[in-house]
Amino acid sequence: MSRTILIIGIGAGNPEHMTVQAINALNRSDVLLIPTKGEEKAFLADMRRDICERYLTNEATRIHEYAVPKRRTDGSYDGGVNDWHHAIARIYEETILERSGPDDTIGLLVWGDPMLYDSTIRIVEHVRAAGRVAFELEVIPGITSIQALCASRKIALNRIGLPVQITTGRRLSEGWPEGTGDVVVMLDGVEAFRTVQDRDAEIHWGAYLGTPLEVTISGRLDEVAETISETRSRARQQNGWIMDAYLIRRRDGPETEGET
Amino acid sequence: MSRTILIIGIGAGNPEHMTVQAINALNRSDVLLIPTKGEEKAFLADMRRDICERYLTNEATRIHEYAVPKRRTDGSYDGGVNDWHHAIARIYEETILERSGPDDTIGLLVWGDPMLYDSTIRIVEHVRAAGRVAFELEVIPGITSIQALCASRKIALNRIGLPVQITTGRRLSEGWPEGTGDVVVMLDGVEAFRTVQDRDAEIHWGAYLGTPLEVTISGRLDEVAETISETRSRARQQNGWIMDAYLIRRRDGPETEGET
Repeated sequence: MSRTILIIGIGAGNPEHMTVQAINALNRSDVLLIPTKGEEKAFLADMRRDICERYLTNEATRIHEYAVPKRRTDGSYDGGVNDWHHAIARIYEETILERSGPDDTIGLLVWGDPMLYDSTIRIVEHVRAAGRVAFELEVIPGITSIQALCASRKIALNRIGLPVQITTGRRLSEGWPEGTGDVVVMLDGVEAFRTVQDRDAEIHWGAYLGTPLEVTISGRLDEVAETISETRSRARQQNGWIMDAYLIRRRDGPETEGET
Repeated sequence: MSRTILIIGIGAGNPEHMTVQAINALNRSDVLLIPTKGEEKAFLADMRRDICERYLTNEATRIHEYAVPKRRTDGSYDGGVNDWHHAIARIYEETILERSGPDDTIGLLVWGDPMLYDSTIRIVEHVRAAGRVAFELEVIPGITSIQALCASRKIALNRIGLPVQITTGRRLSEGWPEGTGDVVVMLDGVEAFRTVQDRDAEIHWGAYLGTPLEVTISGRLDEVAETISETRSRARQQNGWIMDAYLIRRRDGPETEGET
Protein backbone atom coordinates (compact mmCIF):
# COMPACT_ATOMS: atom_id res chain seq x y z
CA MET A 1 0.00 0.00 0.00
CA SER A 2 1.54 3.24 -1.08
CA ARG A 3 0.58 6.73 -2.10
CA THR A 4 1.05 7.92 -5.68
CA ILE A 5 2.08 11.49 -6.43
CA LEU A 6 1.30 12.84 -9.90
CA ILE A 7 3.15 16.01 -10.91
CA ILE A 8 0.91 17.32 -13.66
CA GLY A 9 2.02 19.92 -16.22
CA ILE A 10 -1.08 21.99 -17.02
CA GLY A 11 0.34 24.17 -19.80
CA ALA A 12 1.32 27.80 -20.08
CA GLY A 13 -2.03 29.42 -19.32
CA ASN A 14 -4.41 28.38 -22.08
CA PRO A 15 -6.78 25.77 -20.60
CA GLU A 16 -6.70 24.07 -24.03
CA HIS A 17 -3.00 23.32 -23.51
CA MET A 18 -4.17 20.52 -21.23
CA THR A 19 -3.19 17.13 -22.65
CA VAL A 20 -5.43 14.07 -22.47
CA GLN A 21 -2.78 12.56 -20.17
CA ALA A 22 -3.04 15.56 -17.81
CA ILE A 23 -6.85 15.45 -17.85
CA ASN A 24 -6.74 11.75 -16.99
CA ALA A 25 -4.23 12.45 -14.22
CA LEU A 26 -6.54 15.11 -12.72
CA ASN A 27 -9.31 12.54 -12.65
CA ARG A 28 -7.11 9.78 -11.22
CA SER A 29 -6.32 12.02 -8.23
CA ASP A 30 -8.06 11.50 -4.90
CA VAL A 31 -6.79 14.90 -3.84
CA LEU A 32 -5.45 17.84 -5.85
CA LEU A 33 -3.04 20.15 -4.04
CA ILE A 34 -3.18 23.63 -5.50
CA PRO A 35 -0.65 26.22 -4.37
CA THR A 36 -1.64 29.84 -4.08
CA LYS A 37 1.04 32.48 -3.97
CA GLY A 38 1.63 36.18 -3.80
CA GLU A 39 0.29 38.53 -6.42
CA GLU A 40 -0.17 35.86 -9.05
CA LYS A 41 -2.79 34.49 -6.79
CA ALA A 42 -6.09 35.82 -8.08
CA PHE A 43 -5.57 35.43 -11.84
CA LEU A 44 -3.64 32.16 -11.84
CA ALA A 45 -5.78 30.59 -9.13
CA ASP A 46 -8.84 31.45 -11.26
CA MET A 47 -7.23 29.78 -14.27
CA ARG A 48 -6.44 26.67 -12.24
CA ARG A 49 -10.05 26.58 -11.04
CA ASP A 50 -11.18 26.99 -14.66
CA ILE A 51 -9.06 23.96 -15.62
CA CYS A 52 -10.58 21.90 -12.80
CA GLU A 53 -14.11 23.00 -13.71
CA ARG A 54 -13.62 22.12 -17.38
CA TYR A 55 -11.84 18.83 -17.03
CA LEU A 56 -12.37 17.32 -13.58
CA THR A 57 -15.27 14.90 -13.85
CA ASN A 58 -14.35 12.63 -10.93
CA GLU A 59 -16.73 13.81 -8.20
CA ALA A 60 -14.73 12.04 -5.51
CA THR A 61 -11.63 14.18 -6.13
CA ARG A 62 -10.99 16.63 -3.30
CA ILE A 63 -9.32 19.96 -3.99
CA HIS A 64 -7.11 21.45 -1.32
CA GLU A 65 -5.53 24.87 -1.68
CA TYR A 66 -2.56 25.75 0.45
CA ALA A 67 -0.35 28.81 0.82
CA VAL A 68 3.21 28.76 -0.55
CA PRO A 69 5.73 30.58 1.63
CA LYS A 70 7.54 33.56 0.14
CA ARG A 71 11.14 33.00 -0.83
CA ARG A 72 13.72 34.64 1.43
CA THR A 73 15.42 37.19 -0.78
CA ASP A 74 18.00 38.44 1.72
CA GLY A 75 21.21 36.51 2.27
CA SER A 76 22.76 34.16 -0.24
CA TYR A 77 20.81 33.30 -3.35
CA ASP A 78 21.51 29.62 -2.99
CA GLY A 79 20.52 29.48 0.66
CA GLY A 80 17.32 31.31 -0.19
CA VAL A 81 16.27 28.82 -2.86
CA ASN A 82 17.25 25.74 -0.87
CA ASP A 83 15.55 26.92 2.30
CA TRP A 84 12.46 27.78 0.28
CA HIS A 85 12.36 24.32 -1.33
CA HIS A 86 12.73 22.62 2.03
CA ALA A 87 10.01 24.82 3.53
CA ILE A 88 7.66 23.83 0.68
CA ALA A 89 8.66 20.17 1.09
CA ARG A 90 7.59 20.33 4.75
CA ILE A 91 4.23 21.82 3.69
CA TYR A 92 3.79 19.06 1.09
CA GLU A 93 4.61 16.44 3.68
CA GLU A 94 2.19 17.84 6.27
CA THR A 95 -0.55 18.38 3.70
CA ILE A 96 -0.15 14.89 2.24
CA LEU A 97 -0.26 13.29 5.69
CA GLU A 98 -3.25 15.38 6.77
CA ARG A 99 -5.27 15.38 3.58
CA SER A 100 -4.67 11.97 2.00
CA GLY A 101 -4.99 8.35 2.97
CA PRO A 102 -2.13 5.84 2.73
CA ASP A 103 -3.09 4.56 -0.72
CA ASP A 104 -4.40 7.82 -2.17
CA THR A 105 -3.27 9.42 -5.41
CA ILE A 106 -2.21 13.04 -4.97
CA GLY A 107 -2.09 15.42 -7.94
CA LEU A 108 0.16 18.49 -7.96
CA LEU A 109 -0.66 21.04 -10.66
CA VAL A 110 2.33 22.80 -12.23
CA TRP A 111 2.20 25.66 -14.77
CA GLY A 112 4.05 24.84 -17.97
CA ASP A 113 6.06 21.61 -17.76
CA PRO A 114 7.53 20.28 -14.48
CA MET A 115 10.84 19.72 -16.30
CA LEU A 116 11.56 23.38 -17.11
CA TYR A 117 12.53 25.98 -14.50
CA ASP A 118 10.22 24.42 -11.98
CA SER A 119 11.28 22.74 -8.77
CA THR A 120 8.30 20.55 -7.93
CA ILE A 121 10.20 17.35 -8.83
CA ARG A 122 13.11 18.40 -6.59
CA ILE A 123 10.79 19.37 -3.74
CA VAL A 124 8.93 16.06 -3.92
CA GLU A 125 12.29 14.27 -3.79
CA HIS A 126 13.05 16.24 -0.57
CA VAL A 127 9.78 14.80 0.81
CA ARG A 128 10.90 11.31 -0.20
CA ALA A 129 14.33 11.83 1.36
CA ALA A 130 12.77 12.90 4.68
CA GLY A 131 11.39 9.36 4.87
CA ARG A 132 8.04 10.04 6.54
CA VAL A 133 5.88 9.52 3.42
CA ALA A 134 6.42 6.70 0.91
CA PHE A 135 5.09 7.15 -2.61
CA GLU A 136 5.34 6.27 -6.28
CA LEU A 137 5.97 9.28 -8.54
CA GLU A 138 4.66 10.02 -12.02
CA VAL A 139 5.40 13.13 -14.06
CA ILE A 140 3.09 14.37 -16.81
CA PRO A 141 4.56 16.86 -19.30
CA GLY A 142 2.82 20.10 -20.26
CA ILE A 143 3.11 22.85 -22.85
CA THR A 144 5.70 25.46 -21.78
CA SER A 145 5.63 29.20 -22.35
CA ILE A 146 8.46 28.78 -24.91
CA GLN A 147 6.15 26.59 -26.97
CA ALA A 148 3.25 29.02 -26.53
CA LEU A 149 5.56 31.85 -27.67
CA CYS A 150 6.75 30.03 -30.80
CA ALA A 151 3.20 28.95 -31.68
CA SER A 152 1.88 32.46 -31.22
CA ARG A 153 4.68 34.01 -33.33
CA LYS A 154 4.52 31.07 -35.81
CA ILE A 155 8.26 30.51 -35.64
CA ALA A 156 10.64 27.63 -35.14
CA LEU A 157 12.76 27.78 -31.99
CA ASN A 158 15.88 26.59 -33.78
CA ARG A 159 17.37 27.47 -37.12
CA ILE A 160 18.05 24.47 -39.36
CA GLY A 161 20.51 22.18 -37.60
CA LEU A 162 21.64 24.92 -35.19
CA PRO A 163 21.64 24.82 -31.38
CA VAL A 164 19.49 26.88 -28.99
CA GLN A 165 20.36 27.77 -25.43
CA ILE A 166 17.67 28.09 -22.77
CA THR A 167 18.80 30.34 -19.96
CA THR A 168 17.76 32.91 -17.35
CA GLY A 169 17.79 36.71 -17.47
CA ARG A 170 20.47 36.82 -14.80
CA ARG A 171 22.77 34.63 -16.93
CA LEU A 172 22.14 36.56 -20.14
CA SER A 173 22.89 39.83 -18.36
CA GLU A 174 26.39 38.42 -17.66
CA GLY A 175 27.05 38.14 -21.41
CA TRP A 176 25.88 36.37 -24.56
CA PRO A 177 26.47 32.61 -24.23
CA GLU A 178 29.27 31.27 -26.43
CA GLY A 179 28.63 28.90 -29.27
CA THR A 180 25.03 29.74 -30.06
CA GLY A 181 23.22 32.45 -31.99
CA ASP A 182 19.81 31.64 -30.50
CA VAL A 183 18.92 32.14 -26.85
CA VAL A 184 15.63 31.65 -25.02
CA VAL A 185 15.20 33.47 -21.73
CA MET A 186 12.66 32.07 -19.31
CA LEU A 187 13.02 33.99 -16.06
CA ASP A 188 14.01 37.58 -16.43
CA GLY A 189 13.52 40.02 -13.59
CA VAL A 190 16.31 42.27 -14.90
CA GLU A 191 15.28 42.90 -18.55
CA ALA A 192 18.50 41.27 -19.71
CA PHE A 193 17.52 41.78 -23.36
CA ARG A 194 18.51 45.42 -22.84
CA THR A 195 22.10 44.37 -22.16
CA VAL A 196 22.56 42.45 -25.44
CA GLN A 197 25.27 44.22 -27.46
CA ASP A 198 24.18 43.01 -30.88
CA ARG A 199 21.30 45.44 -31.49
CA ASP A 200 20.80 43.97 -34.95
CA ALA A 201 19.51 40.74 -33.36
CA GLU A 202 15.87 39.73 -33.67
CA ILE A 203 13.72 39.35 -30.55
CA HIS A 204 10.39 37.54 -30.13
CA TRP A 205 8.95 38.51 -26.75
CA GLY A 206 5.72 37.44 -25.08
CA ALA A 207 4.03 37.87 -21.71
CA TYR A 208 1.06 36.01 -20.16
CA LEU A 209 1.46 33.56 -23.04
CA GLY A 210 -1.59 31.44 -23.72
CA THR A 211 -3.83 33.54 -21.45
CA PRO A 212 -6.39 36.20 -22.43
CA LEU A 213 -3.81 38.79 -21.29
CA GLU A 214 -1.24 37.56 -23.86
CA VAL A 215 0.88 40.25 -25.47
CA THR A 216 3.74 39.63 -27.93
CA ILE A 217 6.24 41.88 -29.69
CA SER A 218 8.72 40.88 -32.41
CA GLY A 219 11.36 42.90 -34.20
CA ARG A 220 14.94 44.09 -34.32
CA LEU A 221 16.27 44.55 -30.81
CA ASP A 222 17.30 48.17 -31.44
CA GLU A 223 13.82 48.98 -32.71
CA VAL A 224 11.64 47.20 -30.13
CA ALA A 225 13.65 46.92 -26.88
CA GLU A 226 12.22 50.16 -25.48
CA THR A 227 8.66 49.22 -26.48
CA ILE A 228 9.04 45.82 -24.80
CA SER A 229 10.39 47.45 -21.67
CA GLU A 230 7.51 49.97 -21.52
CA THR A 231 4.88 47.34 -22.35
CA ARG A 232 6.33 45.09 -19.67
CA SER A 233 6.27 47.79 -16.98
CA ARG A 234 2.76 48.91 -17.83
CA ALA A 235 1.40 45.34 -17.93
CA ARG A 236 3.12 44.49 -14.66
CA GLN A 237 1.58 47.54 -12.99
CA GLN A 238 -1.89 46.88 -14.42
CA ASN A 239 -1.97 43.19 -13.55
CA GLY A 240 0.15 43.20 -10.41
CA TRP A 241 2.44 40.47 -11.80
CA ILE A 242 4.09 39.38 -15.03
CA MET A 243 5.42 36.18 -16.55
CA ASP A 244 7.29 36.58 -19.81
CA ALA A 245 9.70 34.73 -22.06
CA TYR A 246 11.62 35.57 -25.18
CA LEU A 247 13.84 34.29 -27.97
CA ILE A 248 16.75 36.35 -29.28
CA ARG A 249 18.26 35.32 -32.60
CA ARG A 250 21.53 36.86 -33.72
CA ARG A 251 21.96 37.35 -37.43
CA ASP A 252 25.52 35.99 -37.41
CA GLY A 253 24.33 32.39 -37.15
CA PRO A 254 23.38 31.72 -40.77
CA GLU A 255 20.74 29.15 -41.54
CA THR A 256 23.00 27.09 -43.74
CA GLU A 257 23.48 23.55 -42.61
CA GLY A 258 21.49 21.06 -40.67
CA GLU A 259 19.27 18.14 -40.48
CA THR A 260 15.67 19.27 -40.39
CA MET B 1 -12.29 34.09 -48.64
CA SER B 2 -9.10 32.37 -47.70
CA ARG B 3 -7.78 29.00 -46.68
CA THR B 4 -6.55 28.38 -43.16
CA ILE B 5 -3.59 26.09 -42.50
CA LEU B 6 -3.26 24.58 -39.03
CA ILE B 7 0.14 23.12 -38.16
CA ILE B 8 -0.78 20.78 -35.33
CA GLY B 9 1.75 19.35 -32.86
CA ILE B 10 0.49 15.88 -31.95
CA GLY B 11 3.04 14.99 -29.27
CA ALA B 12 5.99 12.62 -29.10
CA GLY B 13 4.18 9.33 -29.72
CA ASN B 14 1.77 8.84 -26.84
CA PRO B 15 -1.76 9.54 -28.15
CA GLU B 16 -2.51 11.02 -24.71
CA HIS B 17 0.03 13.78 -25.39
CA MET B 18 -2.66 15.35 -27.58
CA THR B 19 -3.79 18.69 -26.15
CA VAL B 20 -7.39 19.86 -26.17
CA GLN B 21 -6.23 22.59 -28.58
CA ALA B 22 -4.81 19.97 -30.97
CA ILE B 23 -7.96 17.84 -30.74
CA ASN B 24 -10.08 20.90 -31.54
CA ALA B 25 -7.76 21.74 -34.45
CA LEU B 26 -8.16 18.21 -35.88
CA ASN B 27 -11.90 18.68 -35.78
CA ARG B 28 -11.81 22.18 -37.28
CA SER B 29 -9.99 20.78 -40.32
CA ASP B 30 -11.86 20.13 -43.55
CA VAL B 31 -8.91 18.09 -44.73
CA LEU B 32 -6.01 16.52 -42.83
CA LEU B 33 -2.80 16.03 -44.81
CA ILE B 34 -0.82 13.14 -43.41
CA PRO B 35 2.70 12.50 -44.68
CA THR B 36 3.98 8.97 -45.00
CA LYS B 37 7.68 8.38 -45.29
CA GLY B 38 10.32 5.71 -45.54
CA GLU B 39 10.74 3.10 -42.89
CA GLU B 40 8.93 5.05 -40.19
CA LYS B 41 5.88 4.57 -42.29
CA ALA B 42 4.07 1.59 -40.84
CA PHE B 43 4.44 2.25 -37.12
CA LEU B 44 4.10 6.04 -37.16
CA ALA B 45 1.32 6.03 -39.72
CA ASP B 46 -0.55 3.57 -37.46
CA MET B 47 -0.08 5.91 -34.52
CA ARG B 48 -1.36 8.86 -36.54
CA ARG B 49 -4.40 6.83 -37.54
CA ASP B 50 -4.90 5.88 -33.89
CA ILE B 51 -4.90 9.60 -33.00
CA CYS B 52 -7.47 10.35 -35.71
CA GLU B 53 -9.63 7.41 -34.63
CA ARG B 54 -9.58 8.46 -30.99
CA TYR B 55 -10.09 12.17 -31.37
CA LEU B 56 -11.56 13.03 -34.76
CA THR B 57 -15.32 13.31 -34.32
CA ASN B 58 -16.03 15.63 -37.24
CA GLU B 59 -17.39 13.25 -39.86
CA ALA B 60 -16.94 15.79 -42.62
CA THR B 61 -13.14 15.89 -42.18
CA ARG B 62 -11.34 14.24 -45.09
CA ILE B 63 -7.99 12.51 -44.53
CA HIS B 64 -5.47 12.55 -47.35
CA GLU B 65 -2.18 10.69 -47.10
CA TYR B 66 0.66 11.67 -49.41
CA ALA B 67 4.21 10.48 -49.93
CA VAL B 68 7.12 12.62 -48.72
CA PRO B 69 10.14 12.61 -51.05
CA LYS B 70 13.41 11.26 -49.67
CA ARG B 71 16.05 13.83 -48.89
CA ARG B 72 18.95 13.97 -51.31
CA THR B 73 21.94 12.91 -49.25
CA ASP B 74 24.60 13.36 -51.94
CA GLY B 75 26.03 16.81 -52.61
CA SER B 76 26.10 19.64 -50.11
CA TYR B 77 24.18 19.23 -46.90
CA ASP B 78 22.58 22.64 -47.19
CA GLY B 79 21.51 22.13 -50.80
CA GLY B 80 20.04 18.79 -49.81
CA VAL B 81 17.89 20.24 -47.04
CA ASN B 82 16.77 23.28 -49.02
CA ASP B 83 15.93 21.29 -52.15
CA TRP B 84 14.04 18.81 -49.98
CA HIS B 85 12.01 21.57 -48.31
CA HIS B 86 11.15 23.12 -51.66
CA ALA B 87 10.14 19.74 -53.06
CA ILE B 88 7.82 19.20 -50.09
CA ALA B 89 6.46 22.75 -50.49
CA ARG B 90 5.50 21.94 -54.09
CA ILE B 91 3.69 18.79 -52.90
CA TYR B 92 1.86 20.81 -50.23
CA GLU B 93 0.87 23.38 -52.83
CA GLU B 94 -0.40 20.79 -55.32
CA THR B 95 -2.18 18.80 -52.64
CA ILE B 96 -3.81 21.89 -51.14
CA LEU B 97 -5.01 23.08 -54.55
CA GLU B 98 -6.27 19.60 -55.52
CA ARG B 99 -7.76 18.48 -52.24
CA SER B 100 -9.17 21.62 -50.63
CA GLY B 101 -11.59 24.36 -51.52
CA PRO B 102 -10.71 28.07 -51.38
CA ASP B 103 -12.08 28.59 -47.86
CA ASP B 104 -11.18 25.22 -46.41
CA THR B 105 -9.18 24.62 -43.25
CA ILE B 106 -6.23 22.30 -43.80
CA GLY B 107 -4.62 20.47 -40.87
CA LEU B 108 -0.99 19.31 -41.00
CA LEU B 109 -0.03 16.79 -38.31
CA VAL B 110 3.49 17.13 -36.91
CA TRP B 111 5.18 14.78 -34.42
CA GLY B 112 6.35 16.58 -31.30
CA ASP B 113 6.10 20.36 -31.55
CA PRO B 114 6.35 22.23 -34.87
CA MET B 115 8.81 24.65 -33.22
CA LEU B 116 11.56 22.12 -32.50
CA TYR B 117 13.74 20.53 -35.19
CA ASP B 118 10.83 20.42 -37.57
CA SER B 119 10.56 22.37 -40.81
CA THR B 120 6.82 22.38 -41.46
CA ILE B 121 6.54 26.10 -40.62
CA ARG B 122 9.40 26.91 -43.02
CA ILE B 123 7.94 24.71 -45.76
CA VAL B 124 4.51 26.31 -45.42
CA GLU B 125 6.20 29.73 -45.69
CA HIS B 126 7.78 28.54 -48.97
CA VAL B 127 4.24 27.77 -50.17
CA ARG B 128 3.15 31.27 -49.16
CA ALA B 129 6.16 32.84 -50.90
CA ALA B 130 5.38 31.00 -54.15
CA GLY B 131 2.18 33.07 -54.20
CA ARG B 132 -0.22 30.54 -55.72
CA VAL B 133 -2.12 29.75 -52.49
CA ALA B 134 -3.21 32.39 -49.97
CA PHE B 135 -3.87 31.30 -46.39
CA GLU B 136 -3.99 32.22 -42.73
CA LEU B 137 -1.63 30.18 -40.57
CA GLU B 138 -2.08 28.88 -37.03
CA VAL B 139 0.44 26.81 -35.08
CA ILE B 140 -0.59 24.49 -32.24
CA PRO B 141 2.17 23.36 -29.86
CA GLY B 142 2.70 19.74 -28.87
CA ILE B 143 4.67 17.71 -26.34
CA THR B 144 8.24 17.09 -27.58
CA SER B 145 10.40 14.02 -27.06
CA ILE B 146 12.57 16.06 -24.63
CA GLN B 147 9.52 16.51 -22.43
CA ALA B 148 8.57 12.85 -22.76
CA LEU B 149 12.15 11.92 -21.80
CA CYS B 150 12.20 14.13 -18.68
CA ALA B 151 8.72 12.96 -17.62
CA SER B 152 9.69 9.32 -18.08
CA ARG B 153 12.95 9.73 -16.13
CA LYS B 154 11.23 12.06 -13.60
CA ILE B 155 13.93 14.69 -13.94
CA ALA B 156 14.15 18.42 -14.51
CA LEU B 157 15.81 19.49 -17.76
CA ASN B 158 17.74 22.29 -16.10
CA ARG B 159 19.62 22.49 -12.85
CA ILE B 160 18.52 25.35 -10.59
CA GLY B 161 19.10 28.62 -12.43
CA LEU B 162 21.51 27.03 -14.94
CA PRO B 163 21.25 27.04 -18.75
CA VAL B 164 20.60 24.09 -21.06
CA GLN B 165 21.66 23.82 -24.67
CA ILE B 166 19.53 21.95 -27.21
CA THR B 167 21.63 20.73 -30.11
CA THR B 168 22.16 17.99 -32.69
CA GLY B 169 24.41 14.93 -32.65
CA ARG B 170 26.51 16.36 -35.44
CA ARG B 171 27.20 19.52 -33.38
CA LEU B 172 27.97 17.63 -30.17
CA SER B 173 30.39 15.38 -32.04
CA GLU B 174 32.38 18.55 -32.88
CA GLY B 175 32.92 19.22 -29.17
CA TRP B 176 31.10 20.03 -25.94
CA PRO B 177 29.37 23.42 -26.24
CA GLU B 178 30.95 26.19 -24.17
CA GLY B 179 29.20 27.78 -21.26
CA THR B 180 26.81 25.00 -20.32
CA GLY B 181 27.02 21.78 -18.34
CA ASP B 182 23.72 20.43 -19.66
CA VAL B 183 23.10 19.45 -23.26
CA VAL B 184 20.06 17.90 -24.92
CA VAL B 185 20.61 16.12 -28.21
CA MET B 186 17.62 15.75 -30.48
CA LEU B 187 18.88 14.35 -33.77
CA ASP B 188 21.79 12.00 -33.53
CA GLY B 189 22.69 9.70 -36.37
CA VAL B 190 26.31 9.51 -35.22
CA GLU B 191 26.04 8.46 -31.55
CA ALA B 192 27.75 11.67 -30.51
CA PHE B 193 27.43 10.74 -26.83
CA ARG B 194 30.33 8.36 -27.45
CA THR B 195 32.60 11.30 -28.28
CA VAL B 196 32.00 13.18 -25.00
CA GLN B 197 35.32 13.34 -23.15
CA ASP B 198 33.90 13.75 -19.65
CA ARG B 199 33.02 10.11 -18.93
CA ASP B 200 31.91 11.07 -15.45
CA ALA B 201 28.91 12.91 -16.94
CA GLU B 202 25.38 11.61 -16.42
CA ILE B 203 23.27 10.63 -19.42
CA HIS B 204 19.50 10.15 -19.66
CA TRP B 205 18.72 8.48 -22.97
CA GLY B 206 15.40 7.44 -24.47
CA ALA B 207 14.11 6.05 -27.76
CA TYR B 208 10.56 5.79 -29.15
CA LEU B 209 9.59 8.06 -26.25
CA GLY B 210 5.92 8.00 -25.38
CA THR B 211 5.22 4.96 -27.57
CA PRO B 212 4.73 1.34 -26.52
CA LEU B 213 8.29 0.72 -27.81
CA GLU B 214 9.77 3.25 -25.35
CA VAL B 215 13.15 2.33 -23.88
CA THR B 216 15.20 4.53 -21.55
CA ILE B 217 18.63 4.20 -19.96
CA SER B 218 20.20 6.50 -17.35
CA GLY B 219 23.60 6.43 -15.73
CA ARG B 220 27.22 7.54 -15.80
CA LEU B 221 28.39 7.88 -19.37
CA ASP B 222 31.36 5.54 -18.85
CA GLU B 223 29.07 2.89 -17.42
CA VAL B 224 26.15 3.02 -19.87
CA ALA B 225 27.45 4.38 -23.20
CA GLU B 226 28.12 0.87 -24.58
CA THR B 227 24.73 -0.41 -23.39
CA ILE B 228 22.98 2.54 -25.04
CA SER B 229 24.87 1.96 -28.26
CA GLU B 230 24.00 -1.76 -28.30
CA THR B 231 20.38 -1.15 -27.31
CA ARG B 232 20.11 1.47 -30.02
CA SER B 233 21.50 -0.80 -32.75
CA ARG B 234 19.35 -3.73 -31.74
CA ALA B 235 16.17 -1.63 -31.52
CA ARG B 236 16.90 0.02 -34.86
CA GLN B 237 17.35 -3.37 -36.49
CA GLN B 238 14.22 -4.84 -34.88
CA ASN B 239 11.96 -1.90 -35.69
CA GLY B 240 13.52 -0.72 -38.95
CA TRP B 241 13.86 2.84 -37.63
CA ILE B 242 14.74 4.73 -34.46
CA MET B 243 14.01 8.13 -32.95
CA ASP B 244 15.92 8.95 -29.79
CA ALA B 245 16.90 11.90 -27.63
CA TYR B 246 19.10 12.38 -24.61
CA LEU B 247 20.29 14.75 -21.93
CA ILE B 248 23.91 14.80 -20.79
CA ARG B 249 24.69 16.56 -17.53
CA ARG B 250 28.30 17.24 -16.59
CA ARG B 251 29.13 17.16 -12.93
CA ASP B 252 31.21 20.34 -13.10
CA GLY B 253 28.15 22.58 -13.24
CA PRO B 254 27.17 22.60 -9.56
CA GLU B 255 23.57 23.16 -8.63
CA THR B 256 24.36 26.18 -6.52
CA GLU B 257 22.58 29.30 -7.57
CA GLY B 258 19.42 30.15 -9.38
CA GLU B 259 15.90 31.21 -9.40
CA THR B 260 13.61 28.21 -9.35
